[in-house]
Amino acid sequence: MSRPTITLTTDFGLRDPYVAEMKAVILSINPNVTIVDVSHQIEKFNVRMGAYVLASAVPYFHKGTIHVGVVDPGVGTKRHPVVIQTECGYFVGPDNGLFALAVKNIEGKMQMRRIANQKFMRLEMSDTFHGRDIFAPVAAYLAKGTPITDFGPKISQIRTLAFARIIRKRDSFLGEVIHIDDFGNIITNFGARELEAVKTKSSVSVKVKNVKLTLKLCKAYGDVEKQQPLAIIGSHNFLEISVNQGSAANVLKVEAGDEVVLYRS
Amino acid sequence: MSRPTITLTTDFGLRDPYVAEMKAVILSINPNVTIVDVSHQIEKFNVRMGAYVLASAVPYFHKGTIHVGVVDPGVGTKRHPVVIQTECGYFVGPDNGLFALAVKNIEGKMQMRRIANQKFMRLEMSDTFHGRDIFAPVAAYLAKGTPITDFGPKISQIRTLAFARIIRKRDSFLGEVIHIDDFGNIITNFGARELEAVKTKSSVSVKVKNVKLTLKLCKAYGDVEKQQPLAIIGSHNFLEISVNQGSAANVLKVEAGDEVVLYRS
Amino acid sequence: MSRPTITLTTDFGLRDPYVAEMKAVILSINPNVTIVDVSHQIEKFNVRMGAYVLASAVPYFHKGTIHVGVVDPGVGTKRHPVVIQTECGYFVGPDNGLFALAVKNIEGKMQMRRIANQKFMRLEMSDTFHGRDIFAPVAAYLAKGTPITDFGPKISQIRTLAFARIIRKRDSFLGEVIHIDDFGNIITNFGARELEAVKTKSSVSVKVKNVKLTLKLCKAYGDVEKQQPLAIIGSHNFLEISVNQGSAANVLKVEAGDEVVLYRS
Repeated sequence: MSRPTITLTTDFGLRDPYVAEMKAVILSINPNVTIVDVSHQIEKFNVRMGAYVLASAVPYFHKGTIHVGVVDPGVGTKRHPVVIQTECGYFVGPDNGLFALAVKNIEGKMQMRRIANQKFMRLEMSDTFHGRDIFAPVAAYLAKGTPITDFGPKISQIRTLAFARIIRKRDSFLGEVIHIDDFGNIITNFGARELEAVKTKSSVSVKVKNVKLTLKLCKAYGDVEKQQPLAIIGSHNFLEISVNQGSAANVLKVEAGDEVVLYRS
Repeated sequence: MSRPTITLTTDFGLRDPYVAEMKAVILSINPNVTIVDVSHQIEKFNVRMGAYVLASAVPYFHKGTIHVGVVDPGVGTKRHPVVIQTECGYFVGPDNGLFALAVKNIEGKMQMRRIANQKFMRLEMSDTFHGRDIFAPVAAYLAKGTPITDFGPKISQIRTLAFARIIRKRDSFLGEVIHIDDFGNIITNFGARELEAVKTKSSVSVKVKNVKLTLKLCKAYGDVEKQQPLAIIGSHNFLEISVNQGSAANVLKVEAGDEVVLYRS
Repeated sequence: MSRPTITLTTDFGLRDPYVAEMKAVILSINPNVTIVDVSHQIEKFNVRMGAYVLASAVPYFHKGTIHVGVVDPGVGTKRHPVVIQTECGYFVGPDNGLFALAVKNIEGKMQMRRIANQKFMRLEMSDTFHGRDIFAPVAAYLAKGTPITDFGPKISQIRTLAFARIIRKRDSFLGEVIHIDDFGNIITNFGARELEAVKTKSSVSVKVKNVKLTLKLCKAYGDVEKQQPLAIIGSHNFLEISVNQGSAANVLKVEAGDEVVLYRS
C-alpha cells in the first residue's frame, strides 16, 4: 500500500522554524506519510492568493491526499478550524475562505466538520499557531485512517471568497487578475468560454491599468520575439498576458485583483 | 519500524546545489531516512539565529531525530566537528555555539564526541564544505545505527553562546530581542515568569529603540484592529511585540539583538 | 530495495503551485520515490546557471538517480523533450543545453532519446508546462523501470552550451566567472591544472572587472581576517575569489559570465 500524502500551503516563509514544526508534529504522530510543500510563500495574510495556489495544485494530486492550508490571520479568534472530506481529498485548516476555490471545482459528495475534539490537538496548545497545534495533528490522524466524524460536529457550509465574477457587457467582458506568478505572467479569470465568444483566433484585445493592448494569441511563449508581449492560454486554462522571457506584470505594473477588460471583436 | 528523521539547518540559501549535495550524500549512504528542512535561510554566518531557529524546532521532533546544523563561518579552521547524543535526539555540526540553545533545554544525560574517524567522512574531503563531507555522512551513519562512540574521542563540553540574560532591576526587566520572524513579530527573551512578576493581565509597558509603548496583552493577533500593535505570548512561550496583520519590526525598526525593557507595574 | 530518487532543478521559484504540481504528477504515477529539490531558484530562463547548478550536484547522488531539469524558455516551440541514460543516472528535460555540463563529466556509455510516446505524457497536455505534463511523468515511469527505449526515437546528440574555455596566454590564463553563489563567492572555471601552472603556493594574482588583485591562497575562508578577500579552491574544485564572512561579488561587483585573468608568476 502506498504512503498517504499530506500537502502544506502557508504564508510562513522559509526562514523560521514554523514549517518544520508542523512537519515534526505530523511525523511524530504518523511517520509513514509523504509531505509535499505546495507553497510557504503565499503573501502574508493573503487568503485569496492561498486559495488560488492551493486550488491550482489540488487536481494533480491523487484522490486521497490531505491538504493542509494555513493562511490564518484570524488564528485564535472566533473563526473555526475545519476538516473537509471530498471526492478529491481532504482539506484541513481555518474556515476563512482558504478552501473555497479548491472545493468549488470538485464534483460529488462533500462532508464538513468543525474540529472540536481536543484528543486530536496538541496538549500544549497555543492560541497563535493552530497550524502546528491543531491542523498538523488532525492531518496526521486523518492519514492514519481516523474517520472525519471523529473530529467534531457536522457543519453545513464553509466560508466563501468574494472573487470577481466575469461580467458580460455588450462589447466586452469584465474580469480580474487572479494571480501574478513568479515569472510575472498576468493570470486572468477568463477561460476558453470567453475566448470562444471573442471569436478571434489570432489575437485578443485587452485593457489593463487603462492600457489597451492587442496581443497575438500564442500557443507558446516563444512564438513572439524575446521581451515581446503576448496572450496565451496557460497551463491552468486561464488567459494569461505574458512577455516572452520577461515579466508582463513589471512592464504593465499590474497586480492581483486589478480589473481586466477583454474586448469582443 | 519507522524511518529515522534527519533535519537540516543551514545558511546556504536555496539557489545553489549545496543543500541537495548534503541530501545526496545522506541518501547514498542511507536511503531509508526522511529528511526535513528546518531552514536554509539562516542569515549568512549568523550562528545565534541558527541556534534560535534550531532550538525552537527540536522539541516537536520525535526523540531519535538527528539534527544537522551548518552555520559554519569557521569551516576548515580549528573549530571542531562534533556529534552530541541527548535524550531528545542527536546534533551534528561545528562546535561554534550552534547547538548551545537546543541542548540547554534538554534534561538528562548527554554525550559529546569530536568527529575524528575518517571512515565516516567523504574520501574526497574539502576544507570548505564540511556539511557535505563530514556532517551529512556522519548523520547518515548515525541513522544506520552507528554508535556515537565510533565517531571520535569524548569531549567534556561544547561552546556556548553569549545570549543576553534577563536583568532584574527595581522597576523593570532588561531583556533582548532574540528573533524577528518572517511576519515581523519581535520575539523577546521574556517569558511567563517575567510577565507574572509584572502582574498586569491586560497590558504591558515596554521600551524598544527608545520608544515606550503600552500594549494590550492579547490572546490572539486578531484581538486588536488591523495594523494595531499588541503584546502576546507567542507559540514558543516568549513575549512578542506584534502588529495585527502587519510587521512590528518594520514599524518599530527593531532588529535581533536590540535591548528591550519590560516595566513592572 | 531502496526507493529511486528523482531530483528537480527549475527556475519556477517557490511561490507558485508549479513545483508541487510536478511532484503531484510524479507521486500519482509512482508513490515509491524520494523527490529531492536541487534548486527552484535558478534565474528565470538562465539555462547556463541551471546547467552549472545541476552538474555540481549530480556527482553526489547514487548512480540510478533521475534528474529532471526545467529551465525551458522554449517550451512549446521546436526544441525537443529528451531523456538521457548515462552511467551516473538519467536526465529528463528540454534539449536546450541544460544537461550539457552534467553529461560532459560522465564517462562511459550514453543513450539519448527524444520523448515522443504520448503514452507517457499527461492526457491533458499544455503547451506551456512540459515540466508537469511530460518531464514529471517520464521521470516517474523511468523510476518504475520503463526502459528508455520506450519513450521515443534514438537521437545522436544533444545541444551543448557555449561556456568559455580557458585560453592560455604567454603570461596568463583567460577564464570566466561560472557562478556567483548565495554567499557571494566568485566561482571561476580555473581548476587545479591552472593553479599548478601558476606555480605559486601562497598567493595568486587575478584580474576581474579591471581590478587586479593579489590574494592569499587559503585552505579555509577563516584563514584571513573577517571581511578580507582571499583565493581558495572551493568544494567543487574550482578557484574561488571570496571574502571571509562577506560577499566578494558585492564588493567587486562581479557577475556570472565576467572574464577573469589568472596571472602566471
